[in-house]
Amino acid sequence: MNRLEIFFADCTRTVDRKLDELVPSVQTEPKKLHEAIRWSLFAGGKRFRPALVLVIGKTFSAAEEKLLQTAAAVEMIHTYSLIHDDLPAMDDDDLRRGRLTCHKKFDEATAILAGDVLQTLAFQAIAEDKNLTMKIRVKLITELAQSAAKMANGQQLDLEAEGKKISVEELKNIHQCKTGAIISASAKAGAIIAEASADELKAVSNYASKLGLLFQITDDLLDVTQTSEVLGKTAGKDAASEKATYPAFYGLEETRKLAETVHAQSCQELEKIDKDTDLLCEIADFILYRKT
Amino acid sequence: MNRLEIFFADCTRTVDRKLDELVPSVQTEPKKLHEAIRWSLFAGGKRFRPALVLVIGKTFSAAEEKLLQTAAAVEMIHTYSLIHDDLPAMDDDDLRRGRLTCHKKFDEATAILAGDVLQTLAFQAIAEDKNLTMKIRVKLITELAQSAAKMANGQQLDLEAEGKKISVEELKNIHQCKTGAIISASAKAGAIIAEASADELKAVSNYASKLGLLFQITDDLLDVTQTSEVLGKTAGKDAASEKATYPAFYGLEETRKLAETVHAQSCQELEKIDKDTDLLCEIADFILYRKT
Repeated sequence: MNRLEIFFADCTRTVDRKLDELVPSVQTEPKKLHEAIRWSLFAGGKRFRPALVLVIGKTFSAAEEKLLQTAAAVEMIHTYSLIHDDLPAMDDDDLRRGRLTCHKKFDEATAILAGDVLQTLAFQAIAEDKNLTMKIRVKLITELAQSAAKMANGQQLDLEAEGKKISVEELKNIHQCKTGAIISASAKAGAIIAEASADELKAVSNYASKLGLLFQITDDLLDVTQTSEVLGKTAGKDAASEKATYPAFYGLEETRKLAETVHAQSCQELEKIDKDTDLLCEIADFILYRKT
Repeated sequence: MNRLEIFFADCTRTVDRKLDELVPSVQTEPKKLHEAIRWSLFAGGKRFRPALVLVIGKTFSAAEEKLLQTAAAVEMIHTYSLIHDDLPAMDDDDLRRGRLTCHKKFDEATAILAGDVLQTLAFQAIAEDKNLTMKIRVKLITELAQSAAKMANGQQLDLEAEGKKISVEELKNIHQCKTGAIISASAKAGAIIAEASADELKAVSNYASKLGLLFQITDDLLDVTQTSEVLGKTAGKDAASEKATYPAFYGLEETRKLAETVHAQSCQELEKIDKDTDLLCEIADFILYRKT
């Protein structure tokens, strides 16, 4: 394993342990609800957002125990959004992270409530984090709430755009809301916990924003070029539902070039940070070259 | 109007103004989502939970501007739960507060997202409330999150109980979670903002807990005895879906007696509070005798 793989593996381990601590066990009533929450939460996600909290926080010298609960919280927000987005009334997906989606494994009502509770637990986790000052908890909750609202806005815009002709600016806005906001918030959360300066926070935010865009572009590319088996979710869905995507606008080749440009922009932001940002750069590389 | 009616009318006015401030306008994109949120939020609800925040807070001498944002937040949590509970996968209701439910007026996806965003905005409203210290904001968010999780647990238990034989203890637990938790949290929030003592907080919590139980018992009674027109939602639904209710367990007459006992218990709690609690007692009266 290379350094980044080791970092991600470590991160998954520690974040999963924290998530396990924060989420009621399957023995807690209502058992089915907690099974459903855990089904989706421990489905082998990449833990990319919590990893961002950790890596940014550590870049600015925050101790890991200060970062973990917030890292878990952003993953809970992310998983809540996946559960709801997969519902029949939304994207109607049967597969997610290589297994049945929450409503397919359980039922729709349970899936809706599992998402609802995950959102609640995310805010609770930060509010109850004794490793953080009250001021930092409030800042984090504000940041996370703002981005969670944006995320839901993005999902609404995305649903409304289906089957319609939208501009590439509209597409970018949808992604900026739907995916970018939480990714940015995750990075900023790490910097907030580390009490980074305003300038540093700005650079981190820009870096993460580009990272989010890159993530979406490569997601669109993978939907075209990979099989469902490799992705762990239904491939080719975007084209089938006539969804606006970067490849649909620019074609495959231009989209690949766009990914490279955005990757370069994200790395440029890192030059403004007077810390060891090699790992952050490697993360951008990783997203550019990811296969799943 | 009597004193209580004037209080509730005032409360609705000020809380609605605050909600209007906190929720994006229908001109904000995605317009449909914000229309849906406002459709359900401004549907003429009784504003009972925010009224509790205000009345308890004022009982312990908190200034109104410290209470209003939290009052709005509990109403947002309540409305989010109504929107989701009404969904076809849950209680499948067409009418709420005398008008079409959110998913009937708009669509299911929008209704799911409207509920999601309302939950987010509730936590954001408290986190951003500049009238409160950081410590109080964190306490309120913790309290609200704990009760919102309980509320969702209660909805899950309620759905699972449909068509099954459950004990009266199980029924009480469902209500304690589904309705009681947010009502208790609303009352406690007022006391937290007013920085009431631990003993006072306990009495307030017990009072509100009894109030919540009373609310549910009278809700069950009204479902049996009132028409859909008067209630503004589908009457007789509980019996039709063989739902466990107090009248189903005890019969109408015994349920009415139970309501009176619980009412008396809630007022007894008030005797432990060395403040003017007349209005709090009148609220208990109001719930006992309510017709809608």
